[in-house]
Amino acid sequence: MRCDVVAIGTELLLGQIVDTNSAWLGEQLSAAGIDSCLQVKVGDNLERMVKAIRSTLADADAVIICGGLGPTHDDITREAIAEIMGVELEFDDAVGMAISEMFASRNRRMPEINMRQAMVPKGAAIIEQRRGTAPGLICPVGDKVIYAVPGVPYELYEMFERAILPDLLTRSGSASVISSRVLRTWGESESGLNERLFGVIEQLESVGNPTLAFLASGWEGIKVRLTAKSSTQAEVVAILDKWEETVRGAIGDIVFGVDTDTMESVVLQMLRERGLTLGLAESVTGGLVAGRLTGIEGASAVFRGGVVSYATEVKHSVLGVRSDMVVNEEAAIEMAVGACKVLGASVGLALTGVAGPASQEGVKPGTLCVGVCLPDGTTASATYSLPAVRDQMRQLSVISALDFLRRHIREL
Amino acid sequence: MRCDVVAIGTELLLGQIVDTNSAWLGEQLSAAGIDSCLQVKVGDNLERMVKAIRSTLADADAVIICGGLGPTHDDITREAIAEIMGVELEFDDAVGMAISEMFASRNRRMPEINMRQAMVPKGAAIIEQRRGTAPGLICPVGDKVIYAVPGVPYELYEMFERAILPDLLTRSGSASVISSRVLRTWGESESGLNERLFGVIEQLESVGNPTLAFLASGWEGIKVRLTAKSSTQAEVVAILDKWEETVRGAIGDIVFGVDTDTMESVVLQMLRERGLTLGLAESVTGGLVAGRLTGIEGASAVFRGGVVSYATEVKHSVLGVRSDMVVNEEAAIEMAVGACKVLGASVGLALTGVAGPASQEGVKPGTLCVGVCLPDGTTASATYSLPAVRDQMRQLSVISALDFLRRHIREL
Repeated sequence: MRCDVVAIGTELLLGQIVDTNSAWLGEQLSAAGIDSCLQVKVGDNLERMVKAIRSTLADADAVIICGGLGPTHDDITREAIAEIMGVELEFDDAVGMAISEMFASRNRRMPEINMRQAMVPKGAAIIEQRRGTAPGLICPVGDKVIYAVPGVPYELYEMFERAILPDLLTRSGSASVISSRVLRTWGESESGLNERLFGVIEQLESVGNPTLAFLASGWEGIKVRLTAKSSTQAEVVAILDKWEETVRGAIGDIVFGVDTDTMESVVLQMLRERGLTLGLAESVTGGLVAGRLTGIEGASAVFRGGVVSYATEVKHSVLGVRSDMVVNEEAAIEMAVGACKVLGASVGLALTGVAGPASQEGVKPGTLCVGVCLPDGTTASATYSLPAVRDQMRQLSVISALDFLRRHIREL
Repeated sequence: MRCDVVAIGTELLLGQIVDTNSAWLGEQLSAAGIDSCLQVKVGDNLERMVKAIRSTLADADAVIICGGLGPTHDDITREAIAEIMGVELEFDDAVGMAISEMFASRNRRMPEINMRQAMVPKGAAIIEQRRGTAPGLICPVGDKVIYAVPGVPYELYEMFERAILPDLLTRSGSASVISSRVLRTWGESESGLNERLFGVIEQLESVGNPTLAFLASGWEGIKVRLTAKSSTQAEVVAILDKWEETVRGAIGDIVFGVDTDTMESVVLQMLRERGLTLGLAESVTGGLVAGRLTGIEGASAVFRGGVVSYATEVKHSVLGVRSDMVVNEEAAIEMAVGACKVLGASVGLALTGVAGPASQEGVKPGTLCVGVCLPDGTTASATYSLPAVRDQMRQLSVISALDFLRRHIREL
């Protein structure tokens, strides 16, 4: 089964928006065992759209078209599909009603032009819209199919999962339920993971279900994705449960979370469960750790605050660091202890280091020192050698330090 | 002149990497008055690559191929182009030498396989590589042309600007120098800018050179891009200087910077020029402002540090805020004054507000209060109503607060 993608919009070609939809679709299709071999961007021009969609469909079993379903005169995906199907557009009463009701429910006047969104190529099926105004379309073309979805990512995601993927699976004859589970890891390279999982991967290759893929996600770590197929959701979950356990058995505490977990959400959750509060002291990361933690709703139940002690004197005056040398593990521990005291927190985490480009106190760019202090008064520290590229060093510092903290509070 | 783009790489189709290169190229091409009507992603498969490149070239005057120039067996852009040109690949001594020397200069052993990168389709011209190992290629196909560049963005950008754009302009017969200048703005909507610049845009439309475009950049503001053409660089600069002045005359202090300036780099520079230092107090943004400022090299000369006073008690105990109600302008000013004192800074900036989803102290999500204190002891404050979506609210708060500070230190 091959399903290619055509993204519509002159703004994509002008680089005003980066097309992330087709990458997302490619990832979902591949997880479902469906090939996506060509992905095309074309502007809001009827002739070029028709040509691009036709030639893409010629080599594929299905094409997903993203965008061009809006109400304005340059939204012409409906017209392009009708031309390819060789049919007329018809007004769909049910869709028209749904759009009017959507506006009414938000107490907004509906511009007449929105009724364009209720025009449907004759013979197409509707994918009900649950988040916006434009419905999606399923359009048979001989024994092939064109799907059309809005370009707004969260509308597209929802329609793909609810309507398009099941339809593709039915067409491919697999008629099965497919589901993925992502294990989030930190602290091991892709080749290291591969080595540790060698036996598991061999087993999986002989079984064939689930499949396992590594997705490198830069300073968010490496994702290990298991994708299982079966005839019911319960069976799929059982397969994923079993193999998650096997994978965890092989790589252990490198797994910090599952699916939508992030390192910061996991750390906050672990602190919350233990009734602990957190205070931060940041030098080299200059507030990035605090910024990430407070991005999580409900962080205030756990996170007391932070001191961004960028100037050395601030480390002395606010945090009570004694030494003049402030890029070492001892200083990191003093900063963590100081943060606990000043901010009234039960756990303290501190980062000091050199982002570069120049060395500091004779310490090389890329060096990170992390200090932790725990409720019983014990402390811990570590030094990391990270790449000496400023932005990369700072972002890797954030996740390295949070992972160090995670490993210490797990024991509490 | 029409120049389309083909991005090569199975990882792009699988969604492991989002293709940002073709969006960047589209933006550059459009600024130069060259159309880009189709942009394609295809995997590392010779047959499909040849087909995609051929069909793209059929409708365009030129095609830029990004990626597939690496040393490994799945990097087959060179082979695909040779097939389309109907020629053999030949070993290029000069390229081979340059690659060996690059490895030698880094004291690294060169894997034999890297010599694949010195294979060049017969009749192609070389674009010298200045940042990595793979050279770029200029490959004539009849009266059309295929360019090949590495997929590594900063190698691609450099080769495009140095070799491809000038070659395209020569081919298009314009033989002129093209250059853009971007005015960074904050504080006015696109339609507002359009209204204020109505007269300027009318004038420009009759002159035709430079062109003016608005590029909406989300929480980084709106960019106003002027693009001028002329026969020499000096003339282009003179045109841009003249029209920059005209645009600034119409929109004034909404312009906060030019080209690669960011709000944080501009604020740091203004403080540095005035011999001032900065202390921050952040609540709702939880460290994001500090994180942005410290992303700029050399921030330590100006930025003393920050207090992330997430818990209300931290506002009282560390910053000396008196009231129990902490989401208002009075509290923001007290936070700014406290930050100056605690951190030993001459200028203080504070942010307090409600990111949501719930209200706080009866204040609606989306509300931001900013406080500033200046070296002469004067203070200033403002309240903003921002969208009540957590991430958006926090990011808009960062730039709104820095812009508020910018307007106040400008007067000093």
